[in-house]
Amino acid sequence: MARIGIFDSGVGGLTVQRAILAALPGADTLYLGDTARVPYGTKSPETVTQYSLRNARFLRALGIDLLVVACNTASAVALPALREALDLPVVGVVEPGARAAVRASAGGPIGVIGTPGTIASGAYQAAIRVARPGADVRARAASLLVPLAEEGWTDPADELVRGVVRRYLAPLRGEGIDALVLGCTHYPLLAGAIAAELPGVPLVDSAASVAAEVGARFPGDAVGDGRHRFFVTDAPERFLAVAGRFLGRPVEAAEHVDV
Amino acid sequence: MARIGIFDSGVGGLTVQRAILAALPGADTLYLGDTARVPYGTKSPETVTQYSLRNARFLRALGIDLLVVACNTASAVALPALREALDLPVVGVVEPGARAAVRASAGGPIGVIGTPGTIASGAYQAAIRVARPGADVRARAASLLVPLAEEGWTDPADELVRGVVRRYLAPLRGEGIDALVLGCTHYPLLAGAIAAELPGVPLVDSAASVAAEVGARFPGDAVGDGRHRFFVTDAPERFLAVAGRFLGRPVEAAEHVDV
Repeated sequence: MARIGIFDSGVGGLTVQRAILAALPGADTLYLGDTARVPYGTKSPETVTQYSLRNARFLRALGIDLLVVACNTASAVALPALREALDLPVVGVVEPGARAAVRASAGGPIGVIGTPGTIASGAYQAAIRVARPGADVRARAASLLVPLAEEGWTDPADELVRGVVRRYLAPLRGEGIDALVLGCTHYPLLAGAIAAELPGVPLVDSAASVAAEVGARFPGDAVGDGRHRFFVTDAPERFLAVAGRFLGRPVEAAEHVDV
Repeated sequence: MARIGIFDSGVGGLTVQRAILAALPGADTLYLGDTARVPYGTKSPETVTQYSLRNARFLRALGIDLLVVACNTASAVALPALREALDLPVVGVVEPGARAAVRASAGGPIGVIGTPGTIASGAYQAAIRVARPGADVRARAASLLVPLAEEGWTDPADELVRGVVRRYLAPLRGEGIDALVLGCTHYPLLAGAIAAELPGVPLVDSAASVAAEVGARFPGDAVGDGRHRFFVTDAPERFLAVAGRFLGRPVEAAEHVDV
């Protein structure tokens, strides 16, 4: 029996939890969304690392066997500090996403979009080059995509949504990429608009790869009782209003905590 | 001699400081930007109040004679708590902005745009109706305008900028407003695009009204030595990169603090 702790800066990490639960339907999970301090993607590595350590210690104190860092920015900048500070296995989303991108690419340039913090860290670029030495990686920060998705402006038929996505992707389109990493848990909500701007290019979301890695660590069938608790650092109402859409199943309660 | 403390969730409050320094060129100021926890506008009143109290106590401990809450969201939700907790005069931006809007309006409906937190609080709507009983106020949250301005997408000739602004303003345009409150310190950066969508409608920015109110409290000419200190809760680099543009004079140093 195992209990998995998952944290993200907000609600986006629930897409990772969703994939984990598809791989391990019986898993017990504790999810923490740091909604009082979201977003992480525009903040310094020092601040993101400090918040990530607080989140991880909160979850560890409740008793977890594995920590999943479901936030791309936190995975990109805070993983070494988390692994050093915790005596627990820690799984981030960057390395599984990078490996999935290399599998999806036919050998051409690989594109990555993410928050300014994720892209500036160079973590995806480095992880892709570990998976494929000498890989040609084209990384681009796309600041507005998180607020766009949070505003609910995601319809691929919406010319304004398409226009914002197009402005970020046009340089990548010109560079002939043959795979694109969606390096932020919000971006799958914009997959329709992104795909429309990059026809034929596979979009790589790390959630499934993370879930496979987590699943491989718990080879038994029954890893828990399928009990799930949710914690948020801001008032729960806004989280609860959208959580079910991200998780793919109802989320009825979330506890407000100060970490 | 007087020292003025100013806080904002980030860099936008420097536009208020700029107006204060135009009214009181000799003032000493302490500015705190809570850049590690920005934005406030999408967070709950409880969280914004908690952060506002921490910011205010930090500044008060350094010795200030007056506190200016330069953030619209904090002014909208936290002013009563701040006034109760501090034994200091506290000036927010909502009431001066509301009075300026009533002066600018010819008697028709008054529009207000702001963050979700500011609009949901009803603070502008109430303050405008205090200044003009029975006023017809049309308030609208415009979530994407802060990230748009922070991304630097502010050019009124940019069709994408115009499209985002138009989507928020179209309902107000149809309602025949004759003044529009820019209820967030970031919005003056988008004034060109906003004006293009609402030709002939006066745009009201509370900075000048706040400065007049602060100036009236220090009637002497020389209120200080014109010394200014800046504090931020995230790493200073990003703040310093844009602060001069908001303040209208160089900002050479900012101190990283944990509040």
